[in-house]
Amino acid sequence: MLKMVAETIPGYNYGEPGVPRSPVSMTELEQLKRTVGWTLEDERALEMAGEVLRDQARLVVEHWRSQIIAGIPHLARHSRSLNGEKLPNYLARSNLRFEQWILDTCFRPHDQAWLDYQNEIAVRHMEPRKNQTDGVESTPYVPLRDVLAFTAVMNDTIRPYLAAKGDSPADVERMHAAWKKSLQLQLALWANPYMSRETPDQW
Amino acid sequence: MLKMVAETIPGYNYGEPGVPRSPVSMTELEQLKRTVGWTLEDERALEMAGEVLRDQARLVVEHWRSQIIAGIPHLARHSRSLNGEKLPNYLARSNLRFEQWILDTCFRPHDQAWLDYQNEIAVRHMEPRKNQTDGVESTPYVPLRDVLAFTAVMNDTIRPYLAAKGDSPADVERMHAAWKKSLQLQLALWANPYMSRETPDQW
Repeated sequence: MLKMVAETIPGYNYGEPGVPRSPVSMTELEQLKRTVGWTLEDERALEMAGEVLRDQARLVVEHWRSQIIAGIPHLARHSRSLNGEKLPNYLARSNLRFEQWILDTCFRPHDQAWLDYQNEIAVRHMEPRKNQTDGVESTPYVPLRDVLAFTAVMNDTIRPYLAAKGDSPADVERMHAAWKKSLQLQLALWANPYMSRETPDQW
Repeated sequence: MLKMVAETIPGYNYGEPGVPRSPVSMTELEQLKRTVGWTLEDERALEMAGEVLRDQARLVVEHWRSQIIAGIPHLARHSRSLNGEKLPNYLARSNLRFEQWILDTCFRPHDQAWLDYQNEIAVRHMEPRKNQTDGVESTPYVPLRDVLAFTAVMNDTIRPYLAAKGDSPADVERMHAAWKKSLQLQLALWANPYMSRETPDQW
């Protein structure tokens, strides 16, 4: 089911020993899942979403990055150099990880490796880790507020892609509901490192 | 249009001089609105939502509080005493403000008073302010993670109420889209005080 090409994605190390343990416990994760109203049906619906999105992940990321983020300067700067020049290699590498994140959202079980990688994703948007993976000089961090706010766009724009393979409206609705719950769950986990004592100013 | 009974709600002081100025600037707010993809159409759709929700706000809050939160111990505790006893008066007062928040979300313009009250709302979920407004002894704060995660539930469950007055599916969709954008925008603003140097441990 999980046919991915993880080893070919630069900087992607999901489930590898180099990923630090999340400070969030599995008990806290279970509580968060209860808070978002997570069900077994959501798990199945997300897998279905993964099958639907598998060959569209590149299109979706292209949509978000080229059609939306590129036109919003305070977002676009995070993939550019500090004087605003394009960094095509940085963008290409992070786009690949962005695509993989879509599939991981759909296919990965919510186990310790998943929990650890949620922390890793957040930390890679923060100072001092943000640019290290790709060896670039760009903005030192992506403010949490923009991650929270842009989720509204990702939730909204994913829907036509979920509907693109002719599934019934009820199934599309189920896939979309599960997607939105997963994203809100991930946001809650991403907020954790942003609130650590070391980095209280990356709002 | 904005027929509210603000003066009859205990502890509700929207737009009053006692509400401290938000540390977030109007420029940052404009950027955040751009990040969520906010449009004039959303403004109109939210007003329409307000008309639809006006006489259902109590039902909606009842749904969230009695049918959902009350059944989830790690959420229900925030309206109870430290040893788990019900605090009916605290719940009743905060329910009234919760209802008013639904209407404010729909009707209030995004001006300085709105920005200031977003900060106030967040601070009232945090230590040391949480229980002061109602003079109770309850949990010292609501973790940001639960606010972020429970938004998935509020977004999902609001839809039947938006559809309850017979508006066209397209209009219901527009109202719902605007509601979700506004909530994600508010989450981004609520995250700000949670990340201040004084309170980096209320994740």
